[in-house]
Amino acid sequence: MSRRRAVVLLSGGLDSTTVLAMALADGFEVHALTVVYGQRHRVEIDAARRVAQALGVTEHRIAEVDLRLWGGSALTDDLDVPKGGLEPGIPVTYVPARNTVFLSLALANAEAIGACDLFIGVNAVDYSGYPDCRPEFIQAFEALANLATKAGVEGDPIRIHAPILMMTKAEIIRRGLDLGLDYGLTHSCYDPFESGRACGACDSCRIRQAAFAELGLVDPVLIDG
Amino acid sequence: MSRRRAVVLLSGGLDSTTVLAMALADGFEVHALTVVYGQRHRVEIDAARRVAQALGVTEHRIAEVDLRLWGGSALTDDLDVPKGGLEPGIPVTYVPARNTVFLSLALANAEAIGACDLFIGVNAVDYSGYPDCRPEFIQAFEALANLATKAGVEGDPIRIHAPILMMTKAEIIRRGLDLGLDYGLTHSCYDPFESGRACGACDSCRIRQAAFAELGLVDPVLIDG
Repeated sequence: MSRRRAVVLLSGGLDSTTVLAMALADGFEVHALTVVYGQRHRVEIDAARRVAQALGVTEHRIAEVDLRLWGGSALTDDLDVPKGGLEPGIPVTYVPARNTVFLSLALANAEAIGACDLFIGVNAVDYSGYPDCRPEFIQAFEALANLATKAGVEGDPIRIHAPILMMTKAEIIRRGLDLGLDYGLTHSCYDPFESGRACGACDSCRIRQAAFAELGLVDPVLIDG
Repeated sequence: MSRRRAVVLLSGGLDSTTVLAMALADGFEVHALTVVYGQRHRVEIDAARRVAQALGVTEHRIAEVDLRLWGGSALTDDLDVPKGGLEPGIPVTYVPARNTVFLSLALANAEAIGACDLFIGVNAVDYSGYPDCRPEFIQAFEALANLATKAGVEGDPIRIHAPILMMTKAEIIRRGLDLGLDYGLTHSCYDPFESGRACGACDSCRIRQAAFAELGLVDPVLIDG
């Protein structure tokens, strides 16, 4: 029997890498999709390539879409990335409608290759205040996907899997380590050094460090090579 | 009082051009968005540019995203475009999840510029069997948009306007002519000649011609310059 195909959104960060490992462990034939959206740091794409190769996906596609066209985020504009620690509210690193764009492209990819399963590494627990990382967003996208596509209308229902949605960062890392993941391959930093090394001070780095510390570990991306 | 901003998806075809004219007539400050998705015919983009300029939009952005990466449609692949007339079912010219991708990008654009109104020229009457041209799809996207964005969560509700959704093609054309539109600027053909001239035989050309004929008119794109 052939395996069910799934499209897995892969940024090369800790969350999406764990989700990719989980989809493989669930027995899916994985088609990874990395969306290049005008990130300031191509180092993310290099991480996605490393991860896709190391984990042995069936296909890894890289789709480009320029979300810098209209700006509106510290991740795509020249705004400063905050380094003072987490603050309440929606942060400046929020990219307008990013997960909607990502899931739309994953849906297009899935429909074209006959996949009905989409995986995304959104997380509502340590989600840094992004509206498109909440369970109700995922549910609304699944409802949309089943109305939007030939597959949804004629065939198998489309399912949006967000398996780490309600997990803490420490739980995610524990799960990944159980699956044999090397988190040294991943990249999550919002503001890396020229060398590609994580800054250790942005929201994203702080959340990782704290979670590794909770498990009595040091984040491998911060250990000198 | 400043005008409300709206993002209008503009392909340069008859439907989206009419919708753009309607948004301007409604008093919106219009930011047109053309999504280049690996169409085989750049002539569509030229038409969008002509229309945006002729109608006097505030801004016209062109976003590129390559939906050829995964294929799945006669409009992006090398499949033959059918010329034998309309057939039942979802046609090969359907592009997987196209309107979901278009609306996602329009949503990202809208959120970044502080617009809460999105316009799209989908049509459920002469819709050629595409699942993402139905009223329930538009409603589902509006629900999603209000969960997905900072604007939807914190501020004004986001509205997806699909003003020609329930109009026949003849009604659309009548409305556009009442607004002073020159449909000679538009381009709807799926399979134009090298010169950019419409083929007159594909589904899209047939639907236009029949509608102009219903009004006792000839489609201006088929009249020799």
